[in-house]
Amino acid sequence: MIRVAIIGASGYTGSESIRLLLGHCEAEVSYLTALPEECGPAEKVFPQFRGRCGLDIEPLDLDKLSESSDVALCCLPHKVSMGFVPKLLASGVKVVDFSADYRLKDAAVYERFYAVEHTDRENLAKAAFGLCELFRDQIRGVNLVANPGCYPTGAALAAVPALKAGLARPDMVIVNSVTGASGAGKNPSAKFHFPNMNENLFAYGVGTHRHMPEIEQILTSAAGRGVSVLFQPHVGPFDRGILSTVYMEPAKDVKPRELLDLYRDFYAGEPFVQVCDGPPLLKDVATTNYCHVFPTAVKGRIVAFSAIDNLVKGAAGQAIQNMNIIFGLDETLGLR
Amino acid sequence: MIRVAIIGASGYTGSESIRLLLGHCEAEVSYLTALPEECGPAEKVFPQFRGRCGLDIEPLDLDKLSESSDVALCCLPHKVSMGFVPKLLASGVKVVDFSADYRLKDAAVYERFYAVEHTDRENLAKAAFGLCELFRDQIRGVNLVANPGCYPTGAALAAVPALKAGLARPDMVIVNSVTGASGAGKNPSAKFHFPNMNENLFAYGVGTHRHMPEIEQILTSAAGRGVSVLFQPHVGPFDRGILSTVYMEPAKDVKPRELLDLYRDFYAGEPFVQVCDGPPLLKDVATTNYCHVFPTAVKGRIVAFSAIDNLVKGAAGQAIQNMNIIFGLDETLGLR
Amino acid sequence: MIRVAIIGASGYTGSESIRLLLGHCEAEVSYLTALPEECGPAEKVFPQFRGRCGLDIEPLDLDKLSESSDVALCCLPHKVSMGFVPKLLASGVKVVDFSADYRLKDAAVYERFYAVEHTDRENLAKAAFGLCELFRDQIRGVNLVANPGCYPTGAALAAVPALKAGLARPDMVIVNSVTGASGAGKNPSAKFHFPNMNENLFAYGVGTHRHMPEIEQILTSAAGRGVSVLFQPHVGPFDRGILSTVYMEPAKDVKPRELLDLYRDFYAGEPFVQVCDGPPLLKDVATTNYCHVFPTAVKGRIVAFSAIDNLVKGAAGQAIQNMNIIFGLDETLGLR
Amino acid sequence: MIRVAIIGASGYTGSESIRLLLGHCEAEVSYLTALPEECGPAEKVFPQFRGRCGLDIEPLDLDKLSESSDVALCCLPHKVSMGFVPKLLASGVKVVDFSADYRLKDAAVYERFYAVEHTDRENLAKAAFGLCELFRDQIRGVNLVANPGCYPTGAALAAVPALKAGLARPDMVIVNSVTGASGAGKNPSAKFHFPNMNENLFAYGVGTHRHMPEIEQILTSAAGRGVSVLFQPHVGPFDRGILSTVYMEPAKDVKPRELLDLYRDFYAGEPFVQVCDGPPLLKDVATTNYCHVFPTAVKGRIVAFSAIDNLVKGAAGQAIQNMNIIFGLDETLGLR
Repeated sequence: MIRVAIIGASGYTGSESIRLLLGHCEAEVSYLTALPEECGPAEKVFPQFRGRCGLDIEPLDLDKLSESSDVALCCLPHKVSMGFVPKLLASGVKVVDFSADYRLKDAAVYERFYAVEHTDRENLAKAAFGLCELFRDQIRGVNLVANPGCYPTGAALAAVPALKAGLARPDMVIVNSVTGASGAGKNPSAKFHFPNMNENLFAYGVGTHRHMPEIEQILTSAAGRGVSVLFQPHVGPFDRGILSTVYMEPAKDVKPRELLDLYRDFYAGEPFVQVCDGPPLLKDVATTNYCHVFPTAVKGRIVAFSAIDNLVKGAAGQAIQNMNIIFGLDETLGLR
Repeated sequence: MIRVAIIGASGYTGSESIRLLLGHCEAEVSYLTALPEECGPAEKVFPQFRGRCGLDIEPLDLDKLSESSDVALCCLPHKVSMGFVPKLLASGVKVVDFSADYRLKDAAVYERFYAVEHTDRENLAKAAFGLCELFRDQIRGVNLVANPGCYPTGAALAAVPALKAGLARPDMVIVNSVTGASGAGKNPSAKFHFPNMNENLFAYGVGTHRHMPEIEQILTSAAGRGVSVLFQPHVGPFDRGILSTVYMEPAKDVKPRELLDLYRDFYAGEPFVQVCDGPPLLKDVATTNYCHVFPTAVKGRIVAFSAIDNLVKGAAGQAIQNMNIIFGLDETLGLR
Repeated sequence: MIRVAIIGASGYTGSESIRLLLGHCEAEVSYLTALPEECGPAEKVFPQFRGRCGLDIEPLDLDKLSESSDVALCCLPHKVSMGFVPKLLASGVKVVDFSADYRLKDAAVYERFYAVEHTDRENLAKAAFGLCELFRDQIRGVNLVANPGCYPTGAALAAVPALKAGLARPDMVIVNSVTGASGAGKNPSAKFHFPNMNENLFAYGVGTHRHMPEIEQILTSAAGRGVSVLFQPHVGPFDRGILSTVYMEPAKDVKPRELLDLYRDFYAGEPFVQVCDGPPLLKDVATTNYCHVFPTAVKGRIVAFSAIDNLVKGAAGQAIQNMNIIFGLDETLGLR
Repeated sequence: MIRVAIIGASGYTGSESIRLLLGHCEAEVSYLTALPEECGPAEKVFPQFRGRCGLDIEPLDLDKLSESSDVALCCLPHKVSMGFVPKLLASGVKVVDFSADYRLKDAAVYERFYAVEHTDRENLAKAAFGLCELFRDQIRGVNLVANPGCYPTGAALAAVPALKAGLARPDMVIVNSVTGASGAGKNPSAKFHFPNMNENLFAYGVGTHRHMPEIEQILTSAAGRGVSVLFQPHVGPFDRGILSTVYMEPAKDVKPRELLDLYRDFYAGEPFVQVCDGPPLLKDVATTNYCHVFPTAVKGRIVAFSAIDNLVKGAAGQAIQNMNIIFGLDETLGLR
């Protein structure tokens, strides 16, 4: 059994990690940590785990981590994570980090978008980018994986095949996404107060969302040349999921059938990416690690859709998929 | 035109009052006040009023109130309201008060449930209880009306006809209610954070809800003898409305048909209470001042259902209905 | 009082028309018609109108229409409407038609998208296109107004100012919209079955939606030259509203501030279009006739957002606005 | 591996059974059947199983059932099931039946509530009633288990400890329940059309719901004497779950603490029933096989709350729990 610590377990990605690991046959939750004020028996902090998880959530103790665990899922916030990851690694566990701190290879871009100095460039250089379907070979056996952002996961899985094949032009990819409200995290705010968010829908982060450079980095890597992305997120009145509608300009005339064949080939054998016959439904992927994709051509544009669960394929599920890859397990364990 | 001030306008009952008054042909919003930190142009505080309401929300100034307004809808919180209502009355306006401060005729009961001394017993004694259908005669022309609580309005309209007719026994009335999340008010909290409240439903205030004595007071007044009420509120994943299911023990054998006839007679001519042929749907009354009621007899019990919008018939709508009665206007103005 | 008939009153746009007219001080519902199997007292067909509307819904009788009404809101389906509108006009009433039958000025385009011959080209030629803010002068006093589609209303109000000013290039406008489920109409189907639609979101009508040519017609008219539109609709888990995110390529370098000023000038004095300081919230316009718009420039693209209620500004509300214009009334009556 | 057939797999309980079995380490789906018009690859019928379930859903063939499977989860409708169960048993598989056909021990009661003759009294007499926590000993090793109804499961788990201990009087137990809309099944209807059901809540089946006699049967069995139940179901705007609020009259004075201790003792060691410290939240049990219970005493009444997921503990989950018991497996397999 792989013994899994969850660092910063008191939020949504922490509880989702616990939920998924309860169904994993070759891994188990071994250690849970949070800030002192959020500690206590896991089944008090998360009543949904009453009778299912007997552990306490405790303040982080690196010795205890070292003894109890083989790997840490690090669910700490952006900017905070890079202060802890070096210590986690030093205590001998492997780390899958959920924050943005090890995702952007260019520290200058990180520093511009996160307005803080990057304090762990050494590990940044070593970290694998954990979008499993695209970078699987670089993930196997590493000590540190940067788990991708939720929006970048959905956007990249929709856009990469067309870009990599040279069918789409790199100069302007428009990514229009709608996320569920769990994407906002667990802290209450006026925008996400139920009577405000219910029956509502709105755009945010216009031109400024931090996932924009992350999407550009992935697409650029796939296309082999600089890709410019206009990313516009929205949030809607539902718990889970991200639906991305990606508009690309074709490099040459392309038929819907060709695109479908290209995507089917590209994702052949991928357990978690399913190429559909029509636009995907968010509800079909909710609570799962699956991504449903559909590409087509309309009025001289390529339009590609993807649906994922932001907390699973967009966070805890992909982290466990990364963990499975790191340890050479069947990649689908705990995620079927 | 009746000129209407809204005191404490920055919450949900304030904005609902503005919304309804925009459609009132013989009344208009004349003055809006709130705590200094919640002031500003009404259309900034409430973007839904962009282009619809040109007023500013300002800190309360009693002289300005006196000059600008004929009546004040006082949307201040419980315990706070009784500190202001005497001043509002002294400035010459009539007052419809949304808080609980003038509802419970027995100040000792108030003090037990609200854990504070009642500091305005003089006006408490004079205030009319504004459940229009039951106490209309006492409302006409008064200076101060205590607008009823949302749950008591729904519960009373369902239970009173059977109790008043002596068909239901007074010793145990069970009121099981489910409210929408707007009942929690505008302040964000963990319970009402969208990802927590959505797809959720739960009971609260078990045995302790402050509307229990208010319901008992109304039912006792209607029955002419002490009525004991077990009131259990719940909250569900929708914005508006309260569905109450009231279980009563019959004083004698009673047929469904008799009950229906009794309720139809009782509410004949009432514009806002409709006796239905089956269980009412919450959505049919949402955003309106209507109450849909259905009584029947099942397995030796009387079961009576009512549906209201908690923000309209349960708050702002009934306040305007009270205002219409006070000023001798057509009671339905602005509320059709 | 303007006497208003509603033809085909048994659906969502019919009931929404009744709701709005109940609050109109200078117009009243005079006659309601539907297919025989959907007739009956309005308050039985729509329990939300219990005690509010005493009319029966009856099979259409042209003589009765002629006697009872000054204007007909025709809520019949596409293709059906053009069989009735000539008769309605012949009976002497003015008509605001909700269907697509009189919207597309080029009958050939209509026939291609609706796969049926247009049988009333005479009135098609005469009909005014009722997007009030853009074509007000052509609406005054006419006998027949084609009420615009819901998506075209939102898309056009977001895109027109930039196109008309020559700031946006006409060759490719991408309109990404999300509608609430009421847009699907009242007939149950698997897709809109609550357990399927709830917590869901998906695209549909990829490349084939019938509102695409209507949007192109309006934008072309505004730009003064052919505009090509890629329109992609989605549906989300909420009742009301359409949020449109419109991506345009600028004809020249343009600053966010310029766009905001342009839109503010363009809509100055328009009661129902409000230019906001940031992305509009769907909930702020729900149940109202208002459109909230916000234009900006991001990464070399113009992005313009609009929010409307699909049943109000996108249907019944705009129809009443058109009716007010036709009869020379204050355009905002019944719609504040 | 236990090989599991699902008979009538095309509905919500069928897909929920597949979902849960995908995570079961010692059982696997072996055969799926449905009416011919609902057959096809499982991943076409249920797109949520794309890449997760390679089976076809086929018309029932008893030979194939016999060869492929050890047990059948029979998800056929009431009245239909009893025509098939004898054949399923004859083909050598064990059966967990989801319908009501084998639940009511008194065939006359069945025939009154379901208005049809019971055609398989032989198996009715032999069937175990599968409310695992109450009747576990009778389930082990049997060939046929009647899986309980969703409402009866929640109601019984809330009421039984007090009744069995003689703390609650048997003459009147009021069960007030609210279910999510998935309880209505997969067939579209006007009531459950999204724009009608969303933001709605209503009572139904007043005095007539078929789960009333089933609840009475369980409670009578637990109390050891006749228990009379007034059961009032409601449906609310969410997918999953049943919250039951049970009102009982105490047989003697009882303190909240006593009740809590009694329930804790009663359910000690039960993996799936958790006695909470306050009213349970529906969301805490959604998608799980857990039941959260909270009993207390208020104003001279016992009030007991329970929350379950209607599709899991109320259907597919409990069926798998029953299957685990029948085959002597760890009862929690696939259900943690």
